[in-house]
Amino acid sequence: MLAHGSGGKLAHDIIRNSFVSSLSNPVLAQLDDSAVIEAGGRLAFTTDSYVVQPIFFPGGDIGKLAVCGTINDLTMVGATPLYLSLAFIIEEGLPLNDLKKVVSSIKEAAKEAGVTVITGDTKVVNRGTADKLFINTAGIGTVPAGLNVSGHNARPGDRLILSGTVGDHGIAVLSQREGVNFATELNSDCAPLNGLVVEMLNTSDNIHCLRDPTRGGLATTLNEIAEQSSVSLRIDEDKIPVREEVASACEMLGLDPLYVANEGKLISAVAPEDAEKVLKQMKKHRYGRDAAIIGEVKEENPGRVVMKTGLGTTRIIDMLVGEPLPRIC
Amino acid sequence: MLAHGSGGKLAHDIIRNSFVSSLSNPVLAQLDDSAVIEAGGRLAFTTDSYVVQPIFFPGGDIGKLAVCGTINDLTMVGATPLYLSLAFIIEEGLPLNDLKKVVSSIKEAAKEAGVTVITGDTKVVNRGTADKLFINTAGIGTVPAGLNVSGHNARPGDRLILSGTVGDHGIAVLSQREGVNFATELNSDCAPLNGLVVEMLNTSDNIHCLRDPTRGGLATTLNEIAEQSSVSLRIDEDKIPVREEVASACEMLGLDPLYVANEGKLISAVAPEDAEKVLKQMKKHRYGRDAAIIGEVKEENPGRVVMKTGLGTTRIIDMLVGEPLPRIC
Repeated sequence: MLAHGSGGKLAHDIIRNSFVSSLSNPVLAQLDDSAVIEAGGRLAFTTDSYVVQPIFFPGGDIGKLAVCGTINDLTMVGATPLYLSLAFIIEEGLPLNDLKKVVSSIKEAAKEAGVTVITGDTKVVNRGTADKLFINTAGIGTVPAGLNVSGHNARPGDRLILSGTVGDHGIAVLSQREGVNFATELNSDCAPLNGLVVEMLNTSDNIHCLRDPTRGGLATTLNEIAEQSSVSLRIDEDKIPVREEVASACEMLGLDPLYVANEGKLISAVAPEDAEKVLKQMKKHRYGRDAAIIGEVKEENPGRVVMKTGLGTTRIIDMLVGEPLPRIC
Repeated sequence: MLAHGSGGKLAHDIIRNSFVSSLSNPVLAQLDDSAVIEAGGRLAFTTDSYVVQPIFFPGGDIGKLAVCGTINDLTMVGATPLYLSLAFIIEEGLPLNDLKKVVSSIKEAAKEAGVTVITGDTKVVNRGTADKLFINTAGIGTVPAGLNVSGHNARPGDRLILSGTVGDHGIAVLSQREGVNFATELNSDCAPLNGLVVEMLNTSDNIHCLRDPTRGGLATTLNEIAEQSSVSLRIDEDKIPVREEVASACEMLGLDPLYVANEGKLISAVAPEDAEKVLKQMKKHRYGRDAAIIGEVKEENPGRVVMKTGLGTTRIIDMLVGEPLPRIC
């Protein structure tokens, strides 16, 4: 009901009963206008809104996505994620049970990643002025002293390590949306990557760059790195892991898996001398099992991403143009 | 266009041209997955989504609101607001000029309050699945050591100081929405209150509680304080400043100004010995000119808010029940 977003009695009830009780922690339970916590040093701060449609999909839902997405953004600058904010925009009429399922996914994902939801907000808008549920999460983490991981830091010679298969999230959501059925079930890869990154950073001091290729896919993220670091990237199509289901769905739908969204993958630029040992460590982690070195950073033609195709030719990989898959995250 | 939310080329263009250039600062310009800043000690963290309809209203717009609202939430725990995140959910078809006007308001409000937007996100959803523009802001501030301002800290004997007239924001938005015209123009009170609170905290060490009565109005906020602090509050109707236009609009529309939203007001519980000097200091500030002591904190009947009416009778003031004014912020 609209009144659940009024700031009045019903709003208090829904906050107490659906959020605070489930996500229970002493800071959130204060219910002051802001949460107050102790933290210090170098802080990472990020935000993302999630508008995925449908809100439930194979391998996750909008709640899990909202937690993992923001945790991953913190993780990609080398931060240890600590605290999340959680803001719901709810369309009038959303079944309370759906909301509870989403909050329960949030609780589970936050637990896995070791973060705490300490502040939140709920708005309810009239039927037809939102689509069921939008969630925003902002996150705070701390960056260890001396660590400098950034999209600006890829250096010629660095190896590009991808943590696993591409396109799983986008195709899983699309299949749910369009009612496409695969012979085997394809799940979104939605996952918190902070544990994997801890392993990587413990293995090497020469991890220069970490990014998670979400919207826009691996191709767009590679272009961002090439641009920010003023380098070119050469990748090898044969080395990029793609699930068979994803490859055949992409072929059927005229999509390129390099441009399809991921929600539990990262691409890293690592100094050549450390690349193999980082890769080996990643493969031991549940979210890095299919990790692979897919290419290398080069000096010439800064800003360009070039791929050696399976046929042995090369082609330039551009950023995503247009929007083949709206509302994928 | 939907493609502006794709994470691809058009998304990059809109972020560069509409946001980064206008809100320009070195941290935001990094465009990494998270912003990294130095801060430490006791941190305040808060979030709010803004879904006000219409997005432009007398005295402000959704952008100004999104900055001021989050700054005020930080300010109400005694924090110095420092950094904001900014996340847009845009309905496909929103004129780019409207977006630019909103970003320009954000820039202005952030400048007035002395805060920096350091991270952001843009999503675009299909026409009809959002209402023009929703904005989420999260904020980080630092709380001075030893300061403990909270809704839990009101004490019997404290005086209740209100910073100015109530109901201006709600009625200004409603008048715009319903095409009601007033003889004189009524503006939203939307304003950042951190400057006013600095003056208050410099004047007295005995400010126990600060809250901004937004959604749900003054009545709901008073009930929250009474509940959190396990006290009762007695207020005096005659002492509560209400603009003539707001009073008459409320009478016409069957609303009670105590339940109408404010976006630039605060209510404070201050030790009795300091109340007059705090009031005097507030009246010197542009956002505290109409400040007034409107009541007192009592021990008996914890959780209850009682008002002495203009007729000399008393009545219990409850939290807002139902939702007379949806999407007011």
